Amino acid sequence: MSLAEKVIGICRELALCTEEPGRTTRTFLSPPMRDVHRILTDWMSDLGMQVSVDAAGNLHGLHGSPDAPRLMIASHLDTVPGAGAFDGILGVVLGIALCESHPKLAIEVAGFSEEEGVRFGMPFIGSRALVGTLDAAALAKYDRDGISVEQAIRNYGLDPGQILNAKLSPRVFAYLEFHIEQGPVLDQAGVPLAVVDSIVGQSRFSLTFKGHANHAGTTPMHLRRDALAAAAEWILDVEATGNLESGLVATVGALTVLPNAGNVIPGQVRASLDVRHASDEIRLQSVERLLRSAASIAVLRDSFVEHAELLNQSTIAMDPDLCKTLSGYAPFHMSSGAGHDAMILAPHVPSAMLFLRSPGGISHHPDEAVRTEDVAAALEVGQQFIHELERQHA
Amino acid sequence: MSLAEKVIGICRELALCTEEPGRTTRTFLSPPMRDVHRILTDWMSDLGMQVSVDAAGNLHGLHGSPDAPRLMIASHLDTVPGAGAFDGILGVVLGIALCESHPKLAIEVAGFSEEEGVRFGMPFIGSRALVGTLDAAALAKYDRDGISVEQAIRNYGLDPGQILNAKLSPRVFAYLEFHIEQGPVLDQAGVPLAVVDSIVGQSRFSLTFKGHANHAGTTPMHLRRDALAAAAEWILDVEATGNLESGLVATVGALTVLPNAGNVIPGQVRASLDVRHASDEIRLQSVERLLRSAASIAVLRDSFVEHAELLNQSTIAMDPDLCKTLSGYAPFHMSSGAGHDAMILAPHVPSAMLFLRSPGGISHHPDEAVRTEDVAAALEVGQQFIHELERQHA
Repeated sequence: MSLAEKVIGICRELALCTEEPGRTTRTFLSPPMRDVHRILTDWMSDLGMQVSVDAAGNLHGLHGSPDAPRLMIASHLDTVPGAGAFDGILGVVLGIALCESHPKLAIEVAGFSEEEGVRFGMPFIGSRALVGTLDAAALAKYDRDGISVEQAIRNYGLDPGQILNAKLSPRVFAYLEFHIEQGPVLDQAGVPLAVVDSIVGQSRFSLTFKGHANHAGTTPMHLRRDALAAAAEWILDVEATGNLESGLVATVGALTVLPNAGNVIPGQVRASLDVRHASDEIRLQSVERLLRSAASIAVLRDSFVEHAELLNQSTIAMDPDLCKTLSGYAPFHMSSGAGHDAMILAPHVPSAMLFLRSPGGISHHPDEAVRTEDVAAALEVGQQFIHELERQHA
Repeated sequence: MSLAEKVIGICRELALCTEEPGRTTRTFLSPPMRDVHRILTDWMSDLGMQVSVDAAGNLHGLHGSPDAPRLMIASHLDTVPGAGAFDGILGVVLGIALCESHPKLAIEVAGFSEEEGVRFGMPFIGSRALVGTLDAAALAKYDRDGISVEQAIRNYGLDPGQILNAKLSPRVFAYLEFHIEQGPVLDQAGVPLAVVDSIVGQSRFSLTFKGHANHAGTTPMHLRRDALAAAAEWILDVEATGNLESGLVATVGALTVLPNAGNVIPGQVRASLDVRHASDEIRLQSVERLLRSAASIAVLRDSFVEHAELLNQSTIAMDPDLCKTLSGYAPFHMSSGAGHDAMILAPHVPSAMLFLRSPGGISHHPDEAVRTEDVAAALEVGQQFIHELERQHA
């Protein structure tokens, strides 16, 4: 069995650690997380790594001297409900696999306790602890059962009072995250791997179109103020705007219609807007354009529109030097349209990401997969990257 | 106090008979219906009318000889949740008010127990009993509390075994229903009353657009199969189609988006379609056009669309002779875009409807109103109509 086959096999084994029989669901410090920790701890111990769990529930394994400058290789161990076997955890398993050949470079592998935001509606609990932004407000968030982050940490047998000690060691000089692309770009391009230049900025808005609800049978067309027709006009403009710039994506994913009855003209429609681009300027210009078009559409229909900004996240660039090193072994570059732990680490330590092709672009689904040859390629790139860092730090 | 003011006052008093404190909600044979029956029974008894309640809970008051040919004046006594004071009940109160002058013509006033379809999701329970179509299947329908129509009738102290005796007397030679327009046409035209030529036919469909759900951040625009963008394109075509023919209305009132998350491209959208026109041919052609356009839109977007027909109700014409008589006193004519008890009665007895202007077109809302002068005009038309029938049947 090749190392790549072993990596895939371990990921599939870990996917059986789940809260829900029959599908993979593993949220922050849930009981199956303990099984994941145990399996990975056994493996890392066998490799002679020093294993620990920090107060935010992150699993750490240190290969090499505790005093040496080290590379961190990390990703997250939690999943969405009904997940596949590779999102997040593949990056941790690859990190450990790269320690199998006992490189000279000190390597800290970290498996973050939380990235998806499922249990508390707040993502990146694990990596935020490493950069010191998991504050009291975050610890006080409750899950559906009324259990706070702090209590969940205690229930797992950890001490939330030690959160500050979870902070990243100053000896970590670089951060590397392997992750499946979770999109169709590499699959369409027929390329196994990509260096991630940046994690794209994101705007999220909620827009509410307000017309006038009325009887669908008794109200002539020319006397209507149909909020859904207004929203439909705008949804097509969102799509058209997304097509204006290469790399831009603009999405209306959620729509709530009131009163939402077949025989009543919609009086109010709430729509989500999600706009992403590697250039913050293009993203913000696109958002402006869409807010203006919503207002114009509403005015022409004797209606109103209100908007609320929910998120304005700038693009986070990966470290140019690390990207350059990686691109010697994996020449394809792309932006990440999704958020990753690397964007939390990047402001604090030089960070890089390597994407593995997602067959069919499928993710957050049991059919999520990864090709054995792509995993082998990722391991090869990882080894060369480690050797290069060894040379640089020799 | 004028008779019109008295009519409005009684409607407002009856609006206080409600299941819900603070707003008017009165469903089939609910406790407040008993109060309505009591108040109207007292009034009709004072006028010397013979009062009874049939096995479907309809209140009847007979003015004049039981053996004489009679005009039925009727509408419904139930309401939607959070109703106004005039929808339905105004037609019953006007019928009784027209008996105040003790016309020579025998008149049966009926207050139907149910028209809105709120409690059992099935409208016209009252008027269907009069035409013999309230069958065993209808009696076996359940409300949210698991009470059947049959049990609700028993609980009110009535005998569902007597339903067949609720049938319309063969002595009824004509049916007249006064009703608020529940739309903006008369208000916009500045006209108090309208003779209803027909109750327009109606098609209802459910369409499901099927694209492919995917990550809103990682899926480039050109690789999307966005079911909401497809539905939006079609919603605008529904609106455009409604504008193609005078009197046509076409509405998408309900929309359900899956998975309906801001960061996920919609994979599936279910949309309602409601199309109405006085000409069945125009209605059916419009529906055909819209089903074809949905299919074209789906094909061009590499998606699918399915449709299911929920209703194909033909236009019901009112009696031409009665309409002609009425139009001597109320020259404005229009179709009714909403269903009314008259459409249940029309296939069985010559039927007519007179609409009263709805200020602001508002209905199914506490602000629903009627102008005193319009009620006075309706009473005047009613008296002249009765005198004409007296002449014809003298």
